Amino acid sequence: MRKEIKIFILFIAIIMSGRLSTLALSQTIYPDWQIAYHQTELAEPVSWYQATVPGAVQLDIMVAEKYSQPWWYGDNVRQFDWMEDVWFTYKTTFKCPELQNGERLHFFSKGIDYQFKIILNNQTIWEQEGMFTYVDVDLTDALQDMNELKIVLFPVPKLGFDDPEDNPDNYRKNARESAKPPVSYRWDWHPRCVTRGIWDDTYLTICQPIRMNDVSVSYVMDEKLTNTVVRIELLGVNVGGNPYLWTLKDPEGKIVIKKKGLLTSDDSFVEAELLSPVLWWPNGYGNPNLYRSEFVLLDEKNQVLEEYTCKIGFRRIRLIPNEKMWENHWVFPATTSVPPACLEVNNRRIFGKGSNWVHPDVFIGLITPERYREQLELAQKAHFNLLRVWGGGIVNKESFYELCDEMGLLVWQEFPLACNVYPDKPAYLKILEQEAISIVKRLRKHACIALWSGGNELYWSGMTEQSLPLRQLNSICYRFDPHTPFIKTSPFPGVGHGHYLFYDSQLDKELFQWMAEARRTAYTEFGVPGISNIEVLKSFIPSAELFPPKTGTAWSVHHGIGAWRKSSWAEMETYRKYFGESQSLEELVGYSQLMQSEGLKFIYEEARRQKPYCSIALNWCFQEPWPSAANNSLINWPNVPKQAYYHVANALRPVSTSMRARKFEWQEGEEFSFDLFFLNDTYESYDKVKIKVILKYDAKEEELLNWDCFGINQFENVQGPTGHFRIPRMETNLFTILLKAEGYPEYDSSYRFVFKGENVQKTKISYE
Amino acid sequence: MRKEIKIFILFIAIIMSGRLSTLALSQTIYPDWQIAYHQTELAEPVSWYQATVPGAVQLDIMVAEKYSQPWWYGDNVRQFDWMEDVWFTYKTTFKCPELQNGERLHFFSKGIDYQFKIILNNQTIWEQEGMFTYVDVDLTDALQDMNELKIVLFPVPKLGFDDPEDNPDNYRKNARESAKPPVSYRWDWHPRCVTRGIWDDTYLTICQPIRMNDVSVSYVMDEKLTNTVVRIELLGVNVGGNPYLWTLKDPEGKIVIKKKGLLTSDDSFVEAELLSPVLWWPNGYGNPNLYRSEFVLLDEKNQVLEEYTCKIGFRRIRLIPNEKMWENHWVFPATTSVPPACLEVNNRRIFGKGSNWVHPDVFIGLITPERYREQLELAQKAHFNLLRVWGGGIVNKESFYELCDEMGLLVWQEFPLACNVYPDKPAYLKILEQEAISIVKRLRKHACIALWSGGNELYWSGMTEQSLPLRQLNSICYRFDPHTPFIKTSPFPGVGHGHYLFYDSQLDKELFQWMAEARRTAYTEFGVPGISNIEVLKSFIPSAELFPPKTGTAWSVHHGIGAWRKSSWAEMETYRKYFGESQSLEELVGYSQLMQSEGLKFIYEEARRQKPYCSIALNWCFQEPWPSAANNSLINWPNVPKQAYYHVANALRPVSTSMRARKFEWQEGEEFSFDLFFLNDTYESYDKVKIKVILKYDAKEEELLNWDCFGINQFENVQGPTGHFRIPRMETNLFTILLKAEGYPEYDSSYRFVFKGENVQKTKISYE
Repeated sequence: MRKEIKIFILFIAIIMSGRLSTLALSQTIYPDWQIAYHQTELAEPVSWYQATVPGAVQLDIMVAEKYSQPWWYGDNVRQFDWMEDVWFTYKTTFKCPELQNGERLHFFSKGIDYQFKIILNNQTIWEQEGMFTYVDVDLTDALQDMNELKIVLFPVPKLGFDDPEDNPDNYRKNARESAKPPVSYRWDWHPRCVTRGIWDDTYLTICQPIRMNDVSVSYVMDEKLTNTVVRIELLGVNVGGNPYLWTLKDPEGKIVIKKKGLLTSDDSFVEAELLSPVLWWPNGYGNPNLYRSEFVLLDEKNQVLEEYTCKIGFRRIRLIPNEKMWENHWVFPATTSVPPACLEVNNRRIFGKGSNWVHPDVFIGLITPERYREQLELAQKAHFNLLRVWGGGIVNKESFYELCDEMGLLVWQEFPLACNVYPDKPAYLKILEQEAISIVKRLRKHACIALWSGGNELYWSGMTEQSLPLRQLNSICYRFDPHTPFIKTSPFPGVGHGHYLFYDSQLDKELFQWMAEARRTAYTEFGVPGISNIEVLKSFIPSAELFPPKTGTAWSVHHGIGAWRKSSWAEMETYRKYFGESQSLEELVGYSQLMQSEGLKFIYEEARRQKPYCSIALNWCFQEPWPSAANNSLINWPNVPKQAYYHVANALRPVSTSMRARKFEWQEGEEFSFDLFFLNDTYESYDKVKIKVILKYDAKEEELLNWDCFGINQFENVQGPTGHFRIPRMETNLFTILLKAEGYPEYDSSYRFVFKGENVQKTKISYE
Repeated sequence: MRKEIKIFILFIAIIMSGRLSTLALSQTIYPDWQIAYHQTELAEPVSWYQATVPGAVQLDIMVAEKYSQPWWYGDNVRQFDWMEDVWFTYKTTFKCPELQNGERLHFFSKGIDYQFKIILNNQTIWEQEGMFTYVDVDLTDALQDMNELKIVLFPVPKLGFDDPEDNPDNYRKNARESAKPPVSYRWDWHPRCVTRGIWDDTYLTICQPIRMNDVSVSYVMDEKLTNTVVRIELLGVNVGGNPYLWTLKDPEGKIVIKKKGLLTSDDSFVEAELLSPVLWWPNGYGNPNLYRSEFVLLDEKNQVLEEYTCKIGFRRIRLIPNEKMWENHWVFPATTSVPPACLEVNNRRIFGKGSNWVHPDVFIGLITPERYREQLELAQKAHFNLLRVWGGGIVNKESFYELCDEMGLLVWQEFPLACNVYPDKPAYLKILEQEAISIVKRLRKHACIALWSGGNELYWSGMTEQSLPLRQLNSICYRFDPHTPFIKTSPFPGVGHGHYLFYDSQLDKELFQWMAEARRTAYTEFGVPGISNIEVLKSFIPSAELFPPKTGTAWSVHHGIGAWRKSSWAEMETYRKYFGESQSLEELVGYSQLMQSEGLKFIYEEARRQKPYCSIALNWCFQEPWPSAANNSLINWPNVPKQAYYHVANALRPVSTSMRARKFEWQEGEEFSFDLFFLNDTYESYDKVKIKVILKYDAKEEELLNWDCFGINQFENVQGPTGHFRIPRMETNLFTILLKAEGYPEYDSSYRFVFKGENVQKTKISYE
């Protein structure tokens, strides 16, 4: 019995703690905050400084104490190191507002990072560990005429491990028993910079005596996507007996449900039927249609007390077995196929295309809806329909998911676990449960949420199917959002992560080879590094260090050298192998980005060519949280596309020609063979497309092949002939193969390769 | 909110419904029952007959209406067919007992199969679907002076499907939306005989006004197995303020915990520390040590009101990665290894050896503790340490698990799902939730419970990792028994089921080949059929049909012909291939059982030879619920070992010599090669064992090889040399290879093979 009661109470607490997140608020007060640091919890701070909320403790101190700026220049980020182990306190003072007729004053925050106490007038009124559970504290009973409210932040979680100097890749282990995203402890593309502070909307608010605490809108749709029951669940204070008015408007603004009634108690629900709703579709498969629900609480005189509005996208999402999954499994002693990895939306298989999303700024408190929007617009324009919100980083702010809803971008949402063995210990499980419930209950309403995942590479790190944190997450997702698929981690059996290079000297292989040999249900991480854009490099590398890249300079600090393997991510040896010594920064960046572009093009297209067995292709990674010297990202910080971005966007056109080549570098007389494909991820079909294959080198053009491609069905690729030709002698080091689709220039594709020989001229390339 | 409240209430109901299961009862009344059938729910029965409780409706009608007996003879079982679709009612009348000072009269049952209503004096007081949830109904308020209590059984769940005649293997589909074990709908070793009725202890009981409703004993032990906290949780009625006395006795009867106190409320717990408890070990790894807990409820004068006693085995069980599991996984794009499949008990890997347990009688109401005991003793003597309670059948009665606790037999417990696509529908999920919670809460206290499994071959049948019934079961197990591992089904990736033949004519391969080529983490089903013992055959086959076996006789009804593939399970073609036409029933049975014995010996030993990658070997199946003509079972119904039983017992000795041969049948001049092993599943080590290999044929003996086996470590096999010899000319059709361990005759092994040639004499074999 005891256990059930405890769990029960916990749920109430959490539901209430999120209560104001989505309501229209009548009276909100954003106080001014000050900040200070201190060596122990109770030590008196030396100085109080002005704080920016939301923000980060590092930035406030940087400004106040005049640190070198910008913080991302050179190795300036090291200035923040000492802050990990001290305490910080935010402080505000305010006069008690006039509270009338049962009004209450609450402190509310959408995110305080990471462990903290809230102290009002020297009395501790709240303690919390975990940055994803909204904070909602009733201050009323402890108010005085003048009030001092403090938020005391504990030092960052930092479990020790043996000899950190010997294990530079293991810094993430510091976070292995906490729900703090481990990325800030250092990754191969993120500096050691353990951010902390108030990182999302935070304010005081006057709550009315009659109010809605929590409103959740959900629906159940039958398998045929026709009969739908829409349901509003309400948890209120003193709302019993009050009238309500509920309207649901279709995407064109037409009212399709209008319902008026009396709330019977503080815990009520209202349901209505909706026949054949206009469906929400992911990008490339239809429009992301959103309905609008408006729920209004009225007083006895039918005057509006409060209104809750939200958008609803009607869709059914499942993770279903990949086609051909059970082939070759019926040999006794027979085991089973790998688990399902194909997304189905509204009863249609889709090919999941997109990228891994890391947060767009080291300082998460600085992320704005505008920043999300400009990046997500790039994702949408690149034909993405799926983003994996990677478990090493944060669960995003609400505006991210609202934008994904609007733009038809499906979200694979991971919990904040990555690359660690998170323990079976009760203390950890308790924090994880609190955070996971908060996350699921907050996000489940979004049409974009396609998949819950326990976290990143947890099996690789030593967790197993039996690890209690993962069993707990499955359990929480089942209880609060059963109709969204759940996986324990990525990769799971059958799904592939890696490789992260163009050429692997240990294997003496190129991505052209390992990718064509692979047979995975989904490629959910793969990377090809590219050096950053020149203007980005110049923004943080002192000009004397710019060229050539050297160890121990800003190139190292910003992940250009030694970030993963010795060579990563600038991969100077690979550059030399194909192109000889680079003569300038321009040349180096140009060729590095050419490799990244051609490499990613090959992988994305190869994954698509492997459809229907393969169902997802997501590169590592979309953007970066600070300016890198070199990285697998498509977008430089803060929001500058690299060349690869445009090539990836091209490789992901819903319909296109495609060619599988065998390698990148060629010599005179070698036989170049290639496989032709016509790729179709849409639910359109085509009678016929004529495709011409053209070789372009030096200033010449040669026609290699003509393919009449017939009978292209919905969502099916067609494999064409395999072509061959002898590499002629060339005078310049780059040549191109062009696929031209007669009458459909939008399906054309082109691929660049390296010609190697004596007296060959290096092509001057620049950003295209 | 609403959802949480509902779930919460459900838990209370279920906890209470199990309340009397384990308590010493002061006043229990076993009434006489009558039974009748009727075509509709409300139709008046024609006749009332005497009923046996526990029992089955089929057996009561059989006796009353003088059906042909025994029911298992010939095709007598068909006499029960009509009963599936009618209603049955159990009825009893009783005079109201004198109830004093707040005493209450309850109706209690440990199992009513399957859907029913309880009616007292013409008033429906309880309705239930599900046979694994104990029934506990307070009758008091509806009592009269004379009372009539009825239990009305609904017809069996029987969903339709297209053209049953065309899909004889699909009868199980009738049960695809219910929690009734599907086996009784027909399997390849179970007749169509959908049993029903009161199948476990059922009685009226007078409950005292101060009483314990539910007591559960649990413990938490640290990873080092030293610090243990033992906890009693109590749910009572009016017990607040009463004294209690709790004693815990170690396996030798010495008191190690004695605690006296006052219960503070009806919902109390008592905890005590225990340092370094004597551990419970599975068979072959130590003693299954059990402590005894006695919890006594006293009145104010320290007089005993009630006592609750139970046994506790202290152990820690995990499912951990098999050794060498991650070999060959690090090729990019890299996926993960298969999931863990190795049982670890008390921090020691064990090799799981045993069998698949099906219930010992078609009529589950007839199963007694004695029947369980005699079968489990055979399992224990065969060196078994693990039984898979297969999901097609029932969850066993309590005595089964008590005996497994005592005998050190680990239990892999499946939920009642098998070979169907159980749906995501709310109605099914609700029944499954009720039944699963009842099962987990009842069984979790047993030391023997090693693994929860969603059910049998559910991925093979079309369910996936995303199926809601399986996600729900994981969630329930996590909530109520998180420290016992959970798997969604068997086989899961990496684990193998099958084959079920000695020789597969479709593959033209023998088990010697496919088993040696296999690489599975665990072999959790594999079978070799053997025709039943002659006295068993004679018990149900009319003498005119006994020999030779023919289609359309009792051989067909009892699974000898056409039960799985056309040839199964008598496999007459395989017999002919090796031995020519059989001349008598004795010869047929003898050679069939020889093949079963040698076949199972090879598979069990091969699985052990594949340790450490392989970790479990369980044959299909241990026993059978009625007499088969031929079957993969080791034990004939009701409890008669076949020859294979003794060979399996021998193959599972914790320490033994072992040989891998290439095939079964040999001709003169062929090269016979073999691999030698010394197998050690114990945590003992050995310096040296000398092993001699001897060929025995006709009346001759030849020494083939001597192997000095050195350095045998704990729990490690040693692979020896590969030997070769030329097959000489032989005069008789069987020869033997003998492995003799000098000074350790208990490690000797022997293997029989077939010699084929002209004028070869058929050896007369009989039961050995």
